[in-house]
Amino acid sequence: MESRRAEENAELAGALLGDLRDSIDNIDAALIHLLAERFKCTRQVGRLKAEHGLPPADPRREAAQIDRLQALAVDAKLDPEFAKKFLAFIIEEVIRHHESAASMH
Amino acid sequence: MESRRAEENAELAGALLGDLRDSIDNIDAALIHLLAERFKCTRQVGRLKAEHGLPPADPRREAAQIDRLQALAVDAKLDPEFAKKFLAFIIEEVIRHHESAASMH
Repeated sequence: MESRRAEENAELAGALLGDLRDSIDNIDAALIHLLAERFKCTRQVGRLKAEHGLPPADPRREAAQIDRLQALAVDAKLDPEFAKKFLAFIIEEVIRHHESAASMH
Repeated sequence: MESRRAEENAELAGALLGDLRDSIDNIDAALIHLLAERFKCTRQVGRLKAEHGLPPADPRREAAQIDRLQALAVDAKLDPEFAKKFLAFIIEEVIRHHESAASMH
């Protein structure tokens, strides 16, 4: 009786783990596609700034982005420090794109 | 005439830049909310694994996730190397969560 219950419990846990992993995989696919869209936007921003002689970095815009994302993170019950780290991680990649685009000219 | 055209061009560029930034802000809000959902899932996975004495890391699952995300990235015209770095960045945070959850017991 005991061992049957343990077996049922393990089965239930396995099914739940499978469901959670399916959700994580779905969320990851959405994240990848959104990131692809975001980099399309930043590439256009880079081109536009280069064409019009605008400075590549904009510290005021970046500070506003950090504040906004941290507020959104709090609402979504996500660690605001992580939101800040996340934006820095993305911006690092954007700068890498800009640099490799510049080196191609 | 020349200077008027230059002015119009600058105005157009400014409007386009504003639109692109609005899109980036919308995408970032979506990313933050998806990340919050993802961490809810991984927190549940962590609890489930702890309850059932399952090992916290699962290298086979992780390798499959990397392969899948890189294939999705190629389809979405996103650098697959970035997709890999992105997953590593997220998993690092997941491990940090598990460690801080474990230290609370």
